[in-house]
Amino acid sequence: MPRLGMTLEEIRDLIGSGEIIGAADFRCESVASLNQAGADQLSFIKDERYVDQARASKAGALLVPHPMDELDTNQLVVSDPYRCFGLLLGRISEQSQRQPRGVHPQAVVHESARLGQDVTIGAGAVIREETVIGDRSVLYANVYLGQRSVVGAENVIYPGVVIREDTTIGDRVVIHGGSVIGADGYGFVQHEGRHIKVPQVGGILIGDDVEIGALTTIDRATLDRTIIGCGTKVGDQCHIAHNCKIGENVLLLPMVAVSGSVTVGDGAVLAGRSGTADNLRIGAGAVLGGTAVAFKDVPDGATMWGNPAREKGTELRIQAALGRLPEMQRDLRKIKKKLDL
Amino acid sequence: MPRLGMTLEEIRDLIGSGEIIGAADFRCESVASLNQAGADQLSFIKDERYVDQARASKAGALLVPHPMDELDTNQLVVSDPYRCFGLLLGRISEQSQRQPRGVHPQAVVHESARLGQDVTIGAGAVIREETVIGDRSVLYANVYLGQRSVVGAENVIYPGVVIREDTTIGDRVVIHGGSVIGADGYGFVQHEGRHIKVPQVGGILIGDDVEIGALTTIDRATLDRTIIGCGTKVGDQCHIAHNCKIGENVLLLPMVAVSGSVTVGDGAVLAGRSGTADNLRIGAGAVLGGTAVAFKDVPDGATMWGNPAREKGTELRIQAALGRLPEMQRDLRKIKKKLDL
Amino acid sequence: MPRLGMTLEEIRDLIGSGEIIGAADFRCESVASLNQAGADQLSFIKDERYVDQARASKAGALLVPHPMDELDTNQLVVSDPYRCFGLLLGRISEQSQRQPRGVHPQAVVHESARLGQDVTIGAGAVIREETVIGDRSVLYANVYLGQRSVVGAENVIYPGVVIREDTTIGDRVVIHGGSVIGADGYGFVQHEGRHIKVPQVGGILIGDDVEIGALTTIDRATLDRTIIGCGTKVGDQCHIAHNCKIGENVLLLPMVAVSGSVTVGDGAVLAGRSGTADNLRIGAGAVLGGTAVAFKDVPDGATMWGNPAREKGTELRIQAALGRLPEMQRDLRKIKKKLDL
Repeated sequence: MPRLGMTLEEIRDLIGSGEIIGAADFRCESVASLNQAGADQLSFIKDERYVDQARASKAGALLVPHPMDELDTNQLVVSDPYRCFGLLLGRISEQSQRQPRGVHPQAVVHESARLGQDVTIGAGAVIREETVIGDRSVLYANVYLGQRSVVGAENVIYPGVVIREDTTIGDRVVIHGGSVIGADGYGFVQHEGRHIKVPQVGGILIGDDVEIGALTTIDRATLDRTIIGCGTKVGDQCHIAHNCKIGENVLLLPMVAVSGSVTVGDGAVLAGRSGTADNLRIGAGAVLGGTAVAFKDVPDGATMWGNPAREKGTELRIQAALGRLPEMQRDLRKIKKKLDL
Repeated sequence: MPRLGMTLEEIRDLIGSGEIIGAADFRCESVASLNQAGADQLSFIKDERYVDQARASKAGALLVPHPMDELDTNQLVVSDPYRCFGLLLGRISEQSQRQPRGVHPQAVVHESARLGQDVTIGAGAVIREETVIGDRSVLYANVYLGQRSVVGAENVIYPGVVIREDTTIGDRVVIHGGSVIGADGYGFVQHEGRHIKVPQVGGILIGDDVEIGALTTIDRATLDRTIIGCGTKVGDQCHIAHNCKIGENVLLLPMVAVSGSVTVGDGAVLAGRSGTADNLRIGAGAVLGGTAVAFKDVPDGATMWGNPAREKGTELRIQAALGRLPEMQRDLRKIKKKLDL
Repeated sequence: MPRLGMTLEEIRDLIGSGEIIGAADFRCESVASLNQAGADQLSFIKDERYVDQARASKAGALLVPHPMDELDTNQLVVSDPYRCFGLLLGRISEQSQRQPRGVHPQAVVHESARLGQDVTIGAGAVIREETVIGDRSVLYANVYLGQRSVVGAENVIYPGVVIREDTTIGDRVVIHGGSVIGADGYGFVQHEGRHIKVPQVGGILIGDDVEIGALTTIDRATLDRTIIGCGTKVGDQCHIAHNCKIGENVLLLPMVAVSGSVTVGDGAVLAGRSGTADNLRIGAGAVLGGTAVAFKDVPDGATMWGNPAREKGTELRIQAALGRLPEMQRDLRKIKKKLDL
C-alpha cells in the first residue's frame, strides 16, 4: 500500500494550486486506482472517460479536472490531475526508497575512485580503479562499476547492475536491477572455419535523464562509442548492440532489440519487442509497432508495422486480406475450372 | 552424473509399492535417459512408445509400467514410471544441492529483518529493513531483498536474484538466478516533447508454489499490485509488465512477454516467446502457440497461433494458403490475360 | 578512447611483417574507425569498398592491403588489414582490462575448492564446495560458482555470472556479465490440474573457446547434459533450453532461443532473435535468418527465413507476393463479377 499520509490541504500546497471541494482536512492515508481505492485513500480522474468509474469508486478523495457536482467525495480540482497525481507518487516513491546515505562498510571502493558529495554505495558493490561517481548518486548493493567509468550526479543504479570499464553516464540516470552496460559486442570473423573474436575496445556514452529497465544489455562499441541520447527511456530486457547511436527522447519499450551499428533518430518510438536488422537508420519520430522488425531504413516520422516492417496502412491491408486468403484460393480454383485453365 | 546409490528394494520402499523382477539388491548408482544409461544406472519407460528404445538400452535397471518379459534387465513395475522416476529425481536434486544451514557471516542482514527457523542465507546476500523470511527458506549468495518485502516458508531463491521493496511472496516459491522482481514498470507521460516518469509505487504479490525461471523480470504495479497466482510456472527470460494479474496454475514458457495491465485466466498456457499487447484479457485455459502474439482479447479455452494471433485452425489454413501464394499470383495473371482484364 | 601508444615500426614488429610508407616513427596514440579517427590515431581499410572513406579520413596512419599512392597518410601495408587491426585491438583490450592477480580478500572461496596458478577472483565472488578453477582464469566480482563445477584454464567470467552446481566448462571460455548457466530447465507434468516439477538433475558441458554474451541463460539437462560445442559463440540474452546439443563453431546471435532437446549441427548460424520449436534438429551449416523460427527439422546447409521458417527463396517469393495481396484481392473481385461467380 503506497503510504501518503497528507490532508487535501497539504496536497494542494504541495501542488501549488487547486480548489478543494469538501473537507480540506480530510487525510489521505494512501493512494490507489479508482477501482481499488477505499475510504481513506486518494485516487484521480484522468479525463472524462473515467467519470463513470469515479462514480462507482469508494475513494475518500479524488483529484479531478473540474468540479464533479454529482459526486459527494472530497475533491481537489486541478488543471492536470494525472500529472499532479504523478507528483504525489514521486513523493511516495522517494519516501519508500529512503535509505541510509554513505558507503556501506561491506562495499569495496578502490582508493583511486573519486566520490562526490552524499553518495550512497550499498553492501557488496565493487567500485574499481579511477572511477568517478557524482553527487547524490545511489549505487545499490552488488553493483559493479568497472575501471575508469564515470557516473554523473543523482543517478540511481539498482542492485546487481554491471557497468563495465570506460563507460560514461550522465546525470539523473536510472538503471534498473541486473542490467549489463558495456559487455562486448558480438564481433567475430571467420578464419579457416573457426570464429575469431574482434576485440571490442570502444566505450559507451549514456546521456542525462536516461532510464534503463531491468536486465537490459547495452554493448560497448568495437572502436568508438555506443551512444544513448539524453532523455531516452529503455524498457526491461532490451538489447542495444555495439556501435548504435540512439537519439534523444527515444522510447524503447521492453524487449526491443536494436542490432549493430543502427542509428535511431530523436523522438522515435520502438514499441514492445520490436527490432531492427543491423546497419539501418530509423528516422526521427518514426514508430515501430509492437513486434515489428525493420529490415530496411525507416524514414523520419513513418509508422511501420509487421515483420518485415511495412508502412502501417499497407500492413493492415495485407493482414485484412490474409484473413480471406483461404477463401481467395477456393475462388481461384472455381475460376480456373470455369475457364478450363 | 546424478548420483542415486540405492538398491531396487530401497527404491520400491521409497516409492511405497511396486513389483521387482530380477535382483532386488541390484544397486542403481545413478540415473540416466534410456539412450545414455549404462550397466549400473537406472532408467525408465514412460509408456509403450519407448519399448523399442528400452530394448536397445544398456540400463542395468528400469522402471516399467508392466512386466517386460522380453527384457533381461532388472525391472521395478510401478503404476506410473514417469512420476516415480520424478520422485527419485527430487531426492537426487535435494542431495546435490544440500548445503550448510544458517546465515553466512558475509551476508548483510539488517537488524530489523525477521527470520524464521532454519533459514539459509548465502554470502553477499543483502537483506534490508523490515523484511520477513519464512521457515526453511534458502536465499543463495548475492540475493537482494528490499525494504519491507516478505518471503514465505520453504522458498528457494537462487544467486543474484533482486527482489525490490514491498514485494510479497508466498510459500514454496522457487526463483532462479538473476531474476528481477519489482523493478519499475515502463510508465512515462509526454510533456513538451520530453518523457516524464510516472513513479511506480505499487507492489507485487506472488502466490504459493510459483516457480520463476532465470533472468525474468516482473515489474511492480503503478499503484496497486502486480499479481502472480498460486501454482503458476514462469520460464526463463519472461517479462511480466506492471499491473498484470496472472491467474493460478498458468504456464508461461521461456521468453514470454505479457504487456502492461493484462489479465491472464487460470490454467492458460503461453508457449515459448508468445506475448500480448497491453490491457488485454487472455481467457482461462486459453493457449497461445509458440511465438504467437495476441493483439485482442482471447476467449476462455481458445487456442491461438500466429502474429497477430488468430484462432489456430484459421492460422493453419492461412499458412497453408501462403505456401501457394506465388502460384496463385501466376494463376491470376493468366486469368486476367485470358479475360482481357 | 582505446589507447595504443605504439609507433608504426613497433606495430609492424608486433604483426611480424608489413611495409611502412611514410614515417616509421609515427606514434599512434589510439585507434578509431575511418570516420572518427584524428591526426594521432590509427585506422584501417578493410577492402576496396572503403577506399573512398579512407580518402576522407583524418587518420594519422592506416593499415592498408596495398600501397595507396593517392593518400599522403602514413601507411602500413599488410596482407589482411582487418585481422592485423584485430590483433592490435586484442592488445588494447588486454591492457584496458589488466587487473591485480590473486583472490580478493572479500571473495568467499570454500576450502575444498582447487585453484590453478595465477587465478584471479574478484570481491564478492562465491566459490562453493569441490569446485575447480584452471590456471590463469579470471572470475570477476560477484560471480557464483556452484558445488562441484569445473572451470578450465584462461577463462574470463564477468561480474555477476551465476554458474550452478555440476557444470563443466572448458578452456579459454568467456562468459559476459549476469549470464546464468545451469538453471533448471522448464519441466512440469500436469497432475490433477496442478503442475508438478520434474526435478532437473542433469548437468552442463561447455567446450573450449566458447564465448557467451551477457544475460544469457543455458539450462541444465533433466538427466544427462546440455552441451555447447567447442568454438561456438553465443550472443547476449540468448536462451538455450534443457537437453540441447549445440555443435561446434555454431553462431547464435543475440536473443536467439533454442527450445528443449534441440540438436544444432556444427557451423550452423542462427541470426538475431531466431529460434526453434523443441525436439528439432537444425542441420550442420544451416542458417536461420533474423527472427526466423523453425517449427520443423532444418536440413544440413539449408537457409531458412520467416516464421514459420521456410526455405529462403520460397519465403522471399511469398513476401513479395504478400505485398500485392490487396491488389490480388481486388482483381479476384473483378474476375468473379465478370464471370458471374
